[in-house]
Amino acid sequence: MNDLLTQIENIVGPEGVLHGDDARARSGDWLGRTPCLAKAIVRPENTDETAAIVKLCNEHAQPIVPAGGLTGLARGAVANETEIMLSFERMKAIEEVDPVGRTMTVQTGAPLQAVQEAAGDYNMMFPIDLGARGSATIGGNIATNAGGNQVIRYGMMRNQVLGLEVVLADGAVLSSMNKVLKNNSGYDLKHIFIGSEGTLGLVTRAVLRLSPQPKSENTALLAIDDFSKLTTFFEFVGERFADTLNAFEVMWKEHYQIVAVASGRHQAPMEAGHAFYVVVETTGVDERHDSEHFTTVLSEAIEAGLVADAVIASSKAQRGMIWAIREDIEALAAVLLPGAVFDVSLPISAMDAYTRTITREIAAAWPDNNRVVIFGHLGDGNLHIGATASPWTVDVHNRIENIVYGPLAAVGGAISAEHGVGLEKRNFLNISRTEEEIALMRMLKGALDPKNLFNPGKVLAI
Amino acid sequence: MNDLLTQIENIVGPEGVLHGDDARARSGDWLGRTPCLAKAIVRPENTDETAAIVKLCNEHAQPIVPAGGLTGLARGAVANETEIMLSFERMKAIEEVDPVGRTMTVQTGAPLQAVQEAAGDYNMMFPIDLGARGSATIGGNIATNAGGNQVIRYGMMRNQVLGLEVVLADGAVLSSMNKVLKNNSGYDLKHIFIGSEGTLGLVTRAVLRLSPQPKSENTALLAIDDFSKLTTFFEFVGERFADTLNAFEVMWKEHYQIVAVASGRHQAPMEAGHAFYVVVETTGVDERHDSEHFTTVLSEAIEAGLVADAVIASSKAQRGMIWAIREDIEALAAVLLPGAVFDVSLPISAMDAYTRTITREIAAAWPDNNRVVIFGHLGDGNLHIGATASPWTVDVHNRIENIVYGPLAAVGGAISAEHGVGLEKRNFLNISRTEEEIALMRMLKGALDPKNLFNPGKVLAI
Repeated sequence: MNDLLTQIENIVGPEGVLHGDDARARSGDWLGRTPCLAKAIVRPENTDETAAIVKLCNEHAQPIVPAGGLTGLARGAVANETEIMLSFERMKAIEEVDPVGRTMTVQTGAPLQAVQEAAGDYNMMFPIDLGARGSATIGGNIATNAGGNQVIRYGMMRNQVLGLEVVLADGAVLSSMNKVLKNNSGYDLKHIFIGSEGTLGLVTRAVLRLSPQPKSENTALLAIDDFSKLTTFFEFVGERFADTLNAFEVMWKEHYQIVAVASGRHQAPMEAGHAFYVVVETTGVDERHDSEHFTTVLSEAIEAGLVADAVIASSKAQRGMIWAIREDIEALAAVLLPGAVFDVSLPISAMDAYTRTITREIAAAWPDNNRVVIFGHLGDGNLHIGATASPWTVDVHNRIENIVYGPLAAVGGAISAEHGVGLEKRNFLNISRTEEEIALMRMLKGALDPKNLFNPGKVLAI
Repeated sequence: MNDLLTQIENIVGPEGVLHGDDARARSGDWLGRTPCLAKAIVRPENTDETAAIVKLCNEHAQPIVPAGGLTGLARGAVANETEIMLSFERMKAIEEVDPVGRTMTVQTGAPLQAVQEAAGDYNMMFPIDLGARGSATIGGNIATNAGGNQVIRYGMMRNQVLGLEVVLADGAVLSSMNKVLKNNSGYDLKHIFIGSEGTLGLVTRAVLRLSPQPKSENTALLAIDDFSKLTTFFEFVGERFADTLNAFEVMWKEHYQIVAVASGRHQAPMEAGHAFYVVVETTGVDERHDSEHFTTVLSEAIEAGLVADAVIASSKAQRGMIWAIREDIEALAAVLLPGAVFDVSLPISAMDAYTRTITREIAAAWPDNNRVVIFGHLGDGNLHIGATASPWTVDVHNRIENIVYGPLAAVGGAISAEHGVGLEKRNFLNISRTEEEIALMRMLKGALDPKNLFNPGKVLAI
C-alpha cells in the first residue's frame, strides 16, 4: 500500500478503505458487468474526513472519482486503475427535517428513497422520483441534476436544492447551507455544482426543499394511435389539469409489447399494438373533485377520438401495476443489451419526425437484427431510446450514436436531458453546445479544479 | 469627445450615444433624485453592436455599467464619471413566441409588461410579476433574478429562463439559446449569469419559458390579529390550496394605515388597526369549483377564528383595488423617504421575533421621529422593510442598516431576497455568505472579467 493510502487510512480508519479484491468485488458499471478498477475505494464518514482526503489527494495530484449509488447511465462514476473512488456510502444521515420551513438537511449519501420516506413521515413530499430510488443517492441526484417522473410539475433536482456544502479541489469546505427560499445575496454558487457530475466539487451535505404531500392521486394508462393525437391529447390535458398534471409518460409501441406482454413479468392492462401508451397522472388536494375531474377529462378525450383505449387505476395496487410497466428497466435490458441507452430532449413538435428517422436509419443499417425502443417523459420533451443491433461491436455502437445524436443539432435538441454526460457523451457535447459554451465550461473546470483531480475526463474530454 | 467614444459612435451611429447634458438629463437612481453621471450613455441596437462595444471597451480598459429599466432598488445600475452606461433601451424586440413549445425569445431590453402581454396574446402567461412591470426589463429581471408576487407558485426569474445569449468581457458572444426544458449536456452555464447583476456578462437575448394561462383567479384581503394566527393561516391555506396558491402577501399594520387610509389614494376595503393584512390569491383551471373552494376555505378560516375581517374580490376591479394597495410604493415613499428600503429573507418561524426586535431597536434609538413599515412576500419568507428617522443622515442610515441586517446571521437570513446587492448591500454580504462563498464569488469574477470592467464594484466591493 502506498504512502498516500496509508495517510488516507489514518483519516478514515482501516474500515474506511477498500483495496485489492475488496475493491474489485464492487462493480464498475450499473449493470455489474465489469469490476471496479479503482486503486482503492475510500469511504469517509463526514465532511471533515472528505476534506482531509481531498487535501491529501491534491498534494499528491491523486485523481478522485466520487461515487453515489452508481445508478447513473452515462459512465460518470467509472474509475480506472490510477484513480481513487471516493464513495459516500457511509454518509447517509438525514440530519434534520423542518416541516414548517419545509426543508430537509441530509448527508450526500442518503438514498433518494430514504429522503422520500423521511419527508413522508412529516406529511411532506420530496418530489424527485425515479426508478433507481432505492440505490440512487441525493449527492448523485445533485451531481447529475436528476429528473425523473414528476419534472413536469416540480422541475428537476436543481429546483429542490436550497443549500449545499461542497469540498473544493484544494480541500476547502464551501458551506452554503442556505435554508431560505429566496436568496439574492450575491452569486448563487450552488448552481455551479448542481449538474456538474462531480467535476467541480464534491457535494457533502445539502438542504433540500420539501413540497406539500398531495391528498389525491389519479393515474391512468391510455392507448393512442398516432402522434398528432398524442400531442393534441397532451395539450388537451395540459389545459384541463394545468399544475395538477404530475406525469405525462409515453411508451412507444415496442416498449409496451416487450415489457407488458412479451416479458411475462406483468399483467398487461390492455392490448398491445397501439402506437403509443401514455401514463397520465394528476395529484391534488381535493380527493372527490380531483377524481371526478380526472374521469371527466379522460372521458372527453375518448369522446373526442383522441384516445383508443383507457384504464383508470381504481386502487393503489392498480396504480402500481401501471407504473411497474413504465419503470421495468430490467425487462428492457434483457432485450436491448448489449446495446446503447440514450436520453435526448427536443421540441415535441420535432419528435415524430425524429423518432421515425432514427428508427428508419437503424432498420436500414441492420435490417434483420436491430431493436429500437422509445419511451420517456414526453411532457418534458425528453425521450429515452434503447437501441441495439447484433453482433454488438464498438463500431455498431458508434454508428448508432451518430444516427441518434446527429439530427438533434438541427432541432436544438440535447444529447442529455437528465442522465448527464459522463464518459458516454463527452465526444458529442458539440451537438448540443456551442464552441463558446464548451470553452467556458473548460474555463470553469480549470478555475475550480486546476490539477484536474475531480472526476477527470468526465463531461469534458481531457 | 475622446477616441473611444468616437469609435463607439462608429458602431452605433450618432443616435446611439448620449453625452453631456443628454446623459445628465437621465436620472441616476430609481427616484430620479440624482442625475446620471456616466461619461456617456451608449445604446446598441443588437448583439453584434453590443459585442463590438464591449470589445473596444476591453481594449481601452473602459468600465461599463449595464442598464435596463433602472427600477432596481440596490443601486446596481449607478454609473460614475469614469464609466460608460450601456443601456439596452433600443433592444426591446420580442422575436418569437412558440405557444406549442411554450417559449418566447426576446431581446434583453423588452419590458416585463410587454412580455406578459405578448404571452397573453397566445393564451399563455409569463409568471414573473412585480410593481415596476411597465419599466423593468427582462434583462434586468435576469440580472437580478427578480422575484415578485407569484414566486410562491412559479419560482423566481431563474426558473423562467431556458436560454441566454451573453456578451463576455472580451467581447465574445456566448450563445446558449436553449429552448428545451431539460438539458444536462454539460454545465448549465446560464445560472452563472442569472442574478449576477451584470458583473459577469451582459445578457443580450433570452429564451423564456411560458406557463399556461389560468382560467380562474380568486383574490381576497384578510385581516389577522396576531402573528401565530398568521402562520397558522398560512399553513391552513397552504394545505387546502396547495399549488393553486398564487400569492400570500402580508402588510403589517402601519403599511395598511399609511397606504390604504392616510394616503387618501385608495378606498380602504376594511378598517385599519388590525395587526396584519393579507392578500391571498389562487388561480386555477375550473372557475366554478375554484371560486367555491376559495370561499369555503376562507369561511372555514373565519370560523376557526384565524381571520378577523375579510373581503373577497367579486370583480376584476375589486381585485385591482386590493393589489393597488399592496403595490402603492409611491404612497410609502412619501412617508418613508429619505429613508432606507430593505429586502430580507428569513425563516417564517423567526419572523415575528425579528420584526419586533428591529422595530423596537429603531424606536429606542429615535423615539420621537422614526417610521418602520413592513410588508412583503411572507409565503416566500421575504420581507420588505422601509425605515427612516429624521433628520436622515449617513450615520442614521448606517445605524439602521446594522439594526436590520445584524440579527439575520443568527437565523440564517439573507440581506437580499430578491432585489440584489448592487452598491447598497455589498458591505453586508458577509452576514449572509461565508468567507469561502465570497472568495469563490471573487474567483468567478476574476475568471470571467479579469479587468473588472463589467459593473465594477457592484455585488463585490473592489
